[in-house]
Amino acid sequence: MLHVEAELIYEFPGSAEVLLLLEAARSSDQAIQNERLTITPSVEIARLDDSVSGERRAVFSAEGEVVIAYAANVEVLPRDDTLARVEQAPVRDLPGEALRYLRASRYCPSDRFESFCRREFGDLRGGDRVEAILDWIHGHLTYEAGVSDAATTALDTFVDRAGVCRDFAHLAITFCRASDIPARAVSAHAWKLDPPDMHAVAEVYLGGRWRLIDATRKCATNGLVRVAMGLDAADIAFMTVFGRATLVSQTFSVEAVQRGFADHNPPGC
Amino acid sequence: MLHVEAELIYEFPGSAEVLLLLEAARSSDQAIQNERLTITPSVEIARLDDSVSGERRAVFSAEGEVVIAYAANVEVLPRDDTLARVEQAPVRDLPGEALRYLRASRYCPSDRFESFCRREFGDLRGGDRVEAILDWIHGHLTYEAGVSDAATTALDTFVDRAGVCRDFAHLAITFCRASDIPARAVSAHAWKLDPPDMHAVAEVYLGGRWRLIDATRKCATNGLVRVAMGLDAADIAFMTVFGRATLVSQTFSVEAVQRGFADHNPPGC
Amino acid sequence: MLHVEAELIYEFPGSAEVLLLLEAARSSDQAIQNERLTITPSVEIARLDDSVSGERRAVFSAEGEVVIAYAANVEVLPRDDTLARVEQAPVRDLPGEALRYLRASRYCPSDRFESFCRREFGDLRGGDRVEAILDWIHGHLTYEAGVSDAATTALDTFVDRAGVCRDFAHLAITFCRASDIPARAVSAHAWKLDPPDMHAVAEVYLGGRWRLIDATRKCATNGLVRVAMGLDAADIAFMTVFGRATLVSQTFSVEAVQRGFADHNPPGC
Amino acid sequence: MLHVEAELIYEFPGSAEVLLLLEAARSSDQAIQNERLTITPSVEIARLDDSVSGERRAVFSAEGEVVIAYAANVEVLPRDDTLARVEQAPVRDLPGEALRYLRASRYCPSDRFESFCRREFGDLRGGDRVEAILDWIHGHLTYEAGVSDAATTALDTFVDRAGVCRDFAHLAITFCRASDIPARAVSAHAWKLDPPDMHAVAEVYLGGRWRLIDATRKCATNGLVRVAMGLDAADIAFMTVFGRATLVSQTFSVEAVQRGFADHNPPGC
Repeated sequence: MLHVEAELIYEFPGSAEVLLLLEAARSSDQAIQNERLTITPSVEIARLDDSVSGERRAVFSAEGEVVIAYAANVEVLPRDDTLARVEQAPVRDLPGEALRYLRASRYCPSDRFESFCRREFGDLRGGDRVEAILDWIHGHLTYEAGVSDAATTALDTFVDRAGVCRDFAHLAITFCRASDIPARAVSAHAWKLDPPDMHAVAEVYLGGRWRLIDATRKCATNGLVRVAMGLDAADIAFMTVFGRATLVSQTFSVEAVQRGFADHNPPGC
Repeated sequence: MLHVEAELIYEFPGSAEVLLLLEAARSSDQAIQNERLTITPSVEIARLDDSVSGERRAVFSAEGEVVIAYAANVEVLPRDDTLARVEQAPVRDLPGEALRYLRASRYCPSDRFESFCRREFGDLRGGDRVEAILDWIHGHLTYEAGVSDAATTALDTFVDRAGVCRDFAHLAITFCRASDIPARAVSAHAWKLDPPDMHAVAEVYLGGRWRLIDATRKCATNGLVRVAMGLDAADIAFMTVFGRATLVSQTFSVEAVQRGFADHNPPGC
Repeated sequence: MLHVEAELIYEFPGSAEVLLLLEAARSSDQAIQNERLTITPSVEIARLDDSVSGERRAVFSAEGEVVIAYAANVEVLPRDDTLARVEQAPVRDLPGEALRYLRASRYCPSDRFESFCRREFGDLRGGDRVEAILDWIHGHLTYEAGVSDAATTALDTFVDRAGVCRDFAHLAITFCRASDIPARAVSAHAWKLDPPDMHAVAEVYLGGRWRLIDATRKCATNGLVRVAMGLDAADIAFMTVFGRATLVSQTFSVEAVQRGFADHNPPGC
Repeated sequence: MLHVEAELIYEFPGSAEVLLLLEAARSSDQAIQNERLTITPSVEIARLDDSVSGERRAVFSAEGEVVIAYAANVEVLPRDDTLARVEQAPVRDLPGEALRYLRASRYCPSDRFESFCRREFGDLRGGDRVEAILDWIHGHLTYEAGVSDAATTALDTFVDRAGVCRDFAHLAITFCRASDIPARAVSAHAWKLDPPDMHAVAEVYLGGRWRLIDATRKCATNGLVRVAMGLDAADIAFMTVFGRATLVSQTFSVEAVQRGFADHNPPGC
């Protein structure tokens, strides 16, 4: 059982709407308990949750200094993220909702990498190809802050050969889509991520379901609490402000807790 | 009543899968009759239709020379695409599926145009802002083939000041999203489009529903038979080939037909 | 008479070569007195000065903490930077060295702006066109730090509608070249620039000679001590390090001094 | 001895100026005989030749259909384009004119490739590094027409992994500059190039002089008649039109001729 906490403090100079993708997704691979989202000062929260993916979306109005606090206990159910020898389905066998994850997006211009992937990964298909892609990224990219920023695309990262989790995820997604494998970006609360932060990973659709991959190789996938899913970073930002805001502080933490203990001692008490 | 026909002939040197977004969408604003999709030589067609948007998706395997023929009679129900004075909803009142159409995409990097839109369109909101956007595009872009290609983004078009329907749609979508108005790309069979071709237009979400806009001002929106919807051209291509193909020929036609006549004389007979 | 001072302190973790474009150019429009360049600890300075443009280039090896100090008294001779009604020469009448300043460069992709300039500046030619370009930039760009960085091109600035002196100069140069007017980037010590810093301006070749323009409209051209000239920021950086370095501090100052006083009291004493 | 011929026929709808970089450079490594440049209808030709590089520049006015014919016999003197073990000079020992060839340009954004080159070519320096760069290009790029166009940069080619001579030259130049080796683009009439065309190659400054390299490995460097030199394709286009023009036809040929024969039988007679 993982105990997740996040506290975001922002200053909104004028009235703004905030879209928050911070809560654990209500998907079949994770069980959520004792969850609490509090906005201070108190505001009305509209919910735009997505019933298909389980993505949780909170929308509210903010002005002045606002404290957003989230806590939950999440049991990540056993996941099988095996890739080796998993087959790549023909397009006709994909679920309709997976089709869009074959396409190029703002930060994942997969249309530009078809030749490269054909050259580099040759005849490998399915899970073996994804493993080769992850090996390539591990061998050719340096994890380094300060090289990339919010405008950095996978094409930039391919040239720069360095970046952070967002950039690693984008490049993996880009190579997968250029290989006709549906791939999407996932944000997650991540156990043992150092320094603690929201993590950006990816999912590929193989063998009839989505499988998590962490191109940075920093976190075990069963230590990941899935939050938002989308084409790339444009879709999974934990906070989107329609208006202006400045960061005051933000902290994230994920801790392993004993199950019985956590059940009777809700987080934050 | 519009009679729509399309014939696509392609040569597939090896086996390939084809995703076809060519059929009229089964949405509430258009009634479809006597519809026929034929692939020659005959193949099994898998359907990945989307029940929410009504988008029709046919997937099949192709090899050698393949003829794809589509015909249908479509009654476009009266549409009200009024923009003037229509209000822009706050984010909390948007349907969940509209959120993604606020975000930057492969060909619509709306994140780059927030300053420009604030400067240029100032305090205008909602339908009035969309009208100002369409006026700006009409005043600053030249419709001209050969300037753009499949890699052209709205940012390129903003610089080039010229393009075709796809480019006009991308720029309109980009400016709308940069103005916090959900906007999506739509492909359509278009009456009186000269020369006849698939048309790329857009839809904005305003006043509680999607409204069609044609940034080229070439077609009346009630002469448009909606086909596919998505973030941009990456999502609405009428044919995506997973493998290789070369074009042999393709023709499109849309004609107004008398209702009684068409009912008894199915297209193509 | 202007008294120019600059002090650059950098830390070089290993041995590096440094190319310094910091000294006042020995061009016919400025007279230099009591000039002194000192590197501490003392090193041998190789000179790669350009006799045609008068650009001064000092190259030396650096390691550890290095202090680069420059001081000079410069009399800027009366310049006539009139633009109005100055004619644009045909290409055949340009000096050979001006040809390269008609071409696109790293940060000035003028090839992309021919349509825009034709549309926007129409039939204006020569100095009148340059004035219209400067008016357009003044009307459409905001001077704002933090929007741009070292990778920002004129195309980015055209989209962002904001930037600093380097970005203003790049956009002016780009529009001039797209209008077949030779234009180059110039770095300068600038009187009354606030905050004090090296300034980036431009020169256009019109009426048989180069004329200074400051697209930011922050400095009078006769308060500019010209230093380096080139295609764009890639050519005129005041310090290029071949190896690694980190900034410790840097200060610039330009002050007006009484002529007699300065003659007898060399700067720094 | 090589006999070079070129015939360019263009249609100029209005009056235009033309800058022609088509004639063999008057450099010390090639001797030119029986040279003839004719423009039909006859026009006055202004010469903007560069005395330092020997680049020949003809400027003239054109209107209507114009035939540009060039022929010359050129003896390419023995060149030593050895790279192996040739040392890389420190910056202080470079000639002043080589400095600009260390910098990023329109189609060679070398600033983006410093990390990649450090990773890929490690501690190799000088001629050995250039050889490793040429090997990398040979191993990772496919020579293929239709992938690139006039807007393609070395960064695009690095992603696309395919292109033509211009693209190969740009990538080689980019990697060399990112390695602190001066590199410039060179256009050439090329013996045995198939199909016959102007060729784009490069030169690197090593061991005290410029050395020719052909990144496509299609031509021996002693079969190359050097024409124009510059930062990249922006500088070496054989024809730049200031105005409008459409191509009617153009042909290039280079043939080996017996020396005595050619001396007495001027080309074209």
